[in-house]
Amino acid sequence: MSDREFAPLGSERVYDGSFISLDVARFRYPDGDEVERAIVRHPGAVGIVCHDDEHLILVRQPREAVGDPDSLELPAGKLEEGEDVMTTAKRELSEEVGLAAEHWEPWTSYYSSVGVMDEEVHVVHATGLHEDPDAEPVEGERIEVVRWPLDDLDGALAATKDAKTIIGLLLLRDRRA
Amino acid sequence: MSDREFAPLGSERVYDGSFISLDVARFRYPDGDEVERAIVRHPGAVGIVCHDDEHLILVRQPREAVGDPDSLELPAGKLEEGEDVMTTAKRELSEEVGLAAEHWEPWTSYYSSVGVMDEEVHVVHATGLHEDPDAEPVEGERIEVVRWPLDDLDGALAATKDAKTIIGLLLLRDRRA
Repeated sequence: MSDREFAPLGSERVYDGSFISLDVARFRYPDGDEVERAIVRHPGAVGIVCHDDEHLILVRQPREAVGDPDSLELPAGKLEEGEDVMTTAKRELSEEVGLAAEHWEPWTSYYSSVGVMDEEVHVVHATGLHEDPDAEPVEGERIEVVRWPLDDLDGALAATKDAKTIIGLLLLRDRRA
Repeated sequence: MSDREFAPLGSERVYDGSFISLDVARFRYPDGDEVERAIVRHPGAVGIVCHDDEHLILVRQPREAVGDPDSLELPAGKLEEGEDVMTTAKRELSEEVGLAAEHWEPWTSYYSSVGVMDEEVHVVHATGLHEDPDAEPVEGERIEVVRWPLDDLDGALAATKDAKTIIGLLLLRDRRA
């Protein structure tokens, strides 16, 4: 057994929210050391790199946690309980920007902040875009759809500080190079 | 004023930890709407893309939050109170891998998870590596130094799910292309 193979010893929920929760959990290592960690529990999320031949579809929305009223991001959303990644992706693309897509491809998944949170974000690619006739925009999200020129990915990268958007756009830039 | 310009209404600290804390905060929008957000407060972190002509310097360490005993990552660490990014970067490079560097360059910074946490991660580039004679490894971090072939960045990208490492390696791959 590796000296890094920790075993869970138990966990106390110190905050139980509708979106995230916070656990204080303990772990034991093979050498007998025990550690305590505050861990944010998050349901996971999906971000969608979507574009036609000319434009990347992005959104602007307020992000209170980082003090930014105009955060430029991929269309995205959190996984609902029991929902698979592609179902979430299709739902969010319809709700946030009113579109459906013909072609879907999973690109990567990553952990947002491995030291403190279990959030896993799935980045998927969507093309063959068309208006979704059944789209029902969600009220109250204050989302503005932004059509960004596809040949200015560097400009989009310079205009965002959002992890999922940076990863998605770097992958798109590589594939177009 | 944009209809996305929120104003803070107050905040209650529901967990106060040594590393992260959790606030439940309220905000008001210009149209009168009020929203409540659970926000994780994090001091920020720095990740270091460092290499010589042949090898990338990475680390493996256990990450209890995501259940991975062998997470492959950039050398990294959290900002101490009042510490600037480059001071943190130099300290962590010495503590985690026993190295100092001649050349430092800030590459990017990003927010890990804009919906729920204020963590900002700074990615910096370090070259001109040499052993730090004053290095004092921190005990108890269970960190293994990994020298990864620089011409196999794709392999390193396939072997990690850590956001800061993916962003740092994608930027390095672009600059070497």
